[in-house]
Order: sequence, then C-alpha cells, then structure tokens
Amino acid sequence: MAGEFPVPELTEVDLGTVLSALADAHRREVVVELFRGDGTERACSSFPLPIAKSTRTHHWKVLRQAGLVRQRDAGNGTFVRLRRDEFDARFPGLLDVVAGIS
Amino acid sequence: MAGEFPVPELTEVDLGTVLSALADAHRREVVVELFRGDGTERACSSFPLPIAKSTRTHHWKVLRQAGLVRQRDAGNGTFVRLRRDEFDARFPGLLDVVAGIS
Repeated sequence: MAGEFPVPELTEVDLGTVLSALADAHRREVVVELFRGDGTERACSSFPLPIAKSTRTHHWKVLRQAGLVRQRDAGNGTFVRLRRDEFDARFPGLLDVVAGIS
Repeated sequence: MAGEFPVPELTEVDLGTVLSALADAHRREVVVELFRGDGTERACSSFPLPIAKSTRTHHWKVLRQAGLVRQRDAGNGTFVRLRRDEFDARFPGLLDVVAGIS
C-alpha cells in the first residue's frame, strides 16, 4: 500500500513521548543523522537500525508518533524525512541540544 | 541508614539514560522544579510524586542513576538536590531546553 503513513499533529505530541523516542540509541542516531543532513528524504534502508524487520518497523512507528519524522511507502521501499521546522516550533532547541550532545 | 545515596560520575552516564529519566512526567516535574529553584536541597516529601512508597523510591533511584540528583537520608527524611553544574558540563543546554519546554 503506497502512500504516506499517518502522523500526529505536533500539538498532539507531548514531551514525554519525544524524550522516550529519543532515549533509544538507534532512534536517536537516525534523528541526528537526519538533523545533520540536507533536509531531503532518505531511504529507510540506509539507516543503521537493527536487522529484524519487526524491530525496524517498531522504531519507525515510534519516531512517527513522536512527531519527529514523516514516512512514505514508495512501493519499492520506504522513505523518511525529519519534520524539522514543525518540530522546532513545538519543542524549541531540543533537536539542536540532542544533536550537539550525541 | 543515614547518609548519601551512591550516584554515578557524570562521565559514566549516557544520554539515553538521561532522556529515559526525563521522559516520565513525574520525574521531569521534579527536575524542572529543582532547576527553577535556588539550588539548595529540598525534602523529597515536598515533591508531587505518586503516593506509593515503592514507586517514589524507584523514581528517585532513576533520577540518581541519570546523574540528575544527589540524595541523602537524614534519618528523619530524605533530601535531594540537583547536580546542576556537573550535569550542565556533561549535557550542555539539555536542562535549559527541557525546563523551557515543560
């Protein structure tokens, strides 16, 4: 089923959900890589997440639900991009600080 | 048994542990209150943590292990203080950003 996966509005996301999402080292690595990138989407398969597909799927879902990423299924693979401006507007400074420390 | 509870050196604390500790709304509230306070210690009983003693004890332990607080047992109660300068040196900006968002 090609198309965009559902994501919450940032106003519906609370800080606890975000901090839980970023607490996991794999997920944090993905977010920091996207943050340091050029803002374009990337193939989900290009990230160093665990091999097991169910675990990968879970990590992407957690990142979507935390308002951190949008993800779409292009049929031949899934692609992800950071919701940087929206996220920064809702949680000012958080991505900068986490990326600075990581 | 009166005295200081053991705490890790900040160099031994990783960001994932800190973000997990701060992901919980009760624990985050404690940290933000200490952050906005005058830096002196406070009675642990003065914080709005859950009533069940085992749950409270768990929350304090998580905050100690994340390098966020020192805690001592004075016999007639336990007292807590933020490790603000040490924490800021290890995780620059994180407390400011979390307190600003919370």
